[in-house]
Amino acid sequence: MDERVREHAEVLVDWSARVEAGDDVVVSVAEDAHELGVAVAEALGERGATVTTLYGSDELSRAYLKGAEAEADGDVDADDFDADPAVDRAIFEAADAYLRIGGGRNTTASADVGSETRQAYVKARRGIREARMDTDWVSTVHPTRSLAQQAGMAYEEYQEFVYDAVLRDWEALAEEMAEMKTILDEGKEVRLVTERDGAPDTDVTMSIAGRTAVNSAASVAYDSHNLPSGEVFTAPYDTAGEAFFDVPMTIDATRVRGVHLVFEAGEVVDFSAEAGEDALAGVLDTDPGARRLGELGIGMNRGIDRFTDSILFDEKMGDTVHMAVGRAYDACLPEGESGNDSAVHVDMISDVSGRSRTEVDGEVVQRDGAFRWEEGFEE
Amino acid sequence: MDERVREHAEVLVDWSARVEAGDDVVVSVAEDAHELGVAVAEALGERGATVTTLYGSDELSRAYLKGAEAEADGDVDADDFDADPAVDRAIFEAADAYLRIGGGRNTTASADVGSETRQAYVKARRGIREARMDTDWVSTVHPTRSLAQQAGMAYEEYQEFVYDAVLRDWEALAEEMAEMKTILDEGKEVRLVTERDGAPDTDVTMSIAGRTAVNSAASVAYDSHNLPSGEVFTAPYDTAGEAFFDVPMTIDATRVRGVHLVFEAGEVVDFSAEAGEDALAGVLDTDPGARRLGELGIGMNRGIDRFTDSILFDEKMGDTVHMAVGRAYDACLPEGESGNDSAVHVDMISDVSGRSRTEVDGEVVQRDGAFRWEEGFEE
Repeated sequence: MDERVREHAEVLVDWSARVEAGDDVVVSVAEDAHELGVAVAEALGERGATVTTLYGSDELSRAYLKGAEAEADGDVDADDFDADPAVDRAIFEAADAYLRIGGGRNTTASADVGSETRQAYVKARRGIREARMDTDWVSTVHPTRSLAQQAGMAYEEYQEFVYDAVLRDWEALAEEMAEMKTILDEGKEVRLVTERDGAPDTDVTMSIAGRTAVNSAASVAYDSHNLPSGEVFTAPYDTAGEAFFDVPMTIDATRVRGVHLVFEAGEVVDFSAEAGEDALAGVLDTDPGARRLGELGIGMNRGIDRFTDSILFDEKMGDTVHMAVGRAYDACLPEGESGNDSAVHVDMISDVSGRSRTEVDGEVVQRDGAFRWEEGFEE
Repeated sequence: MDERVREHAEVLVDWSARVEAGDDVVVSVAEDAHELGVAVAEALGERGATVTTLYGSDELSRAYLKGAEAEADGDVDADDFDADPAVDRAIFEAADAYLRIGGGRNTTASADVGSETRQAYVKARRGIREARMDTDWVSTVHPTRSLAQQAGMAYEEYQEFVYDAVLRDWEALAEEMAEMKTILDEGKEVRLVTERDGAPDTDVTMSIAGRTAVNSAASVAYDSHNLPSGEVFTAPYDTAGEAFFDVPMTIDATRVRGVHLVFEAGEVVDFSAEAGEDALAGVLDTDPGARRLGELGIGMNRGIDRFTDSILFDEKMGDTVHMAVGRAYDACLPEGESGNDSAVHVDMISDVSGRSRTEVDGEVVQRDGAFRWEEGFEE
């Protein structure tokens, strides 16, 4: 076995999920993630944890949904699915940790499932999703040919990309990110300005007063559930101004590029996209919360050096800032207070390695990609 | 998808497991059983059942056990494993049906796990095994290259073999087997005589009085949990005489051939094997019950026309009779009575297509491979 697979498993089990002897761990293994699954099983055996392995197959999920569609003559609604499936509920109520290892054979395996069917299923499974989120869950991916293809990369090249992002000195990165968390926790207002081709394309301000930033250091000990991670994020409000997102993304199998949003009093009042504008409109029209920001995130993982059309990696990349329309994370909100609510959470990314600055309460924190505490930062 | 895969899924879901709308079904998919898993998921979606998919990987199990071995410096005992793993218990207590689809990539994937480690794990998991047996469970296999290799067959040839065994008119076979069940239920003593090379090599009698035969028609509705099945079995006692088993088998990765057992007053008092005698001795020395018969089975599935070194198929083959040393099945015993008890249950098979006869209370039921009600049976 490639030694990097074993190291990936150890980071996942020890740093990310903090598994201890006696823990009941559920591992979901995608179609082509077998090898990392093997390494994780070995690590769990060594730690004295128990393991239950689920098969996370997009093709099986698609088949199940197509079966339900056929039975309902194509007209599926949430009532067609059990809203409280006994086995899945029992699993997540009994589990201490849930490790999801992505890496299927085809990122578009469910492309022919009707979007209404998909939404009905997601709606019916809301309780299960919440039970899953109540465990110490961590999501990662094993590098597969399908993901390499999605990234437009050769397989070995993609493997290196993934391990550069995952096999980091997380302790050191967590310390660096703590500086950014302190700035955001103490700050009241964030302003992001970017220029492209000599003209400003983003100038947006948002309030973050009273909100708590998450130091997302790829560990449940930091309220962070992605491996890799490497971002600091908070839940902004009262957004005003214009923002341009130059990094392409995929929304419901549609390629979306060049998104431009105009905010007034916290709400998107105008928008456009160079490609995929209908998919963007679909997101913004989901519900009232879909027109407000749920997240502002600062990417700080410099092990990620390119965009790969995967939000797990793209939003963590150093020299990027992202904003998500839709649902805010509870961890960013004062105890008992609810933030922006929505059925969606769609991240949009801006490359800030060129002419740009991020200000907190008027002080520049990041300029042209360099943080205040880094070499190359210009006062 | 090969239409036979879809038919296999339908037999499994409808005939074998009797799945109905609202049932909570757990499916375990082995490493190379993906395709049948997809077909089963589609069928479950159509039936309105819920599905939870486990990944039944021998390589993951091996890795977990090797991890535990490394942690215990090679000295693993049952206390090293959680005897009541919360997630697995929750799964089988919540499940209505459990469908196990075998078909890995290597039938010897766990060959380097110490037998003590393996036994310790099996012992620790006894409660989980019982919880699993309390569901409507069915075990089947998807034809894989690894199983074809084990059978010494080409892949496409093996696929045909599997579907010939599985895709039968089960209703009709169940009716035929009902005749055999009636004979065994009403009978008091069974005698099996076989001749090879002109000389008798088996002449054994056993009592079956008071015992109930199972019409194992590959459906939970018949107390039958294998697909394919096609045998009628009961729980004999007071065995006397000699029995020769000419069909080779694999015990703990050792090839065992030409087993000869001598019974007195229900117990094996002498034994030999042409190959693998040590493995046979290991089985018989497990505990006192390992020297007594737990099962007498009559193979009646004529869709199985050759031995493939897989007990799932071999013991069901038409023109065979098998006896198992070790544990008896509760279904064969009067309510509240316990039969032969043992940690093992090892089936041994005799080909009765040549010179042979099976008598019940002195009446010949099967002669030279033909049943009393079949064409070719000689009075």
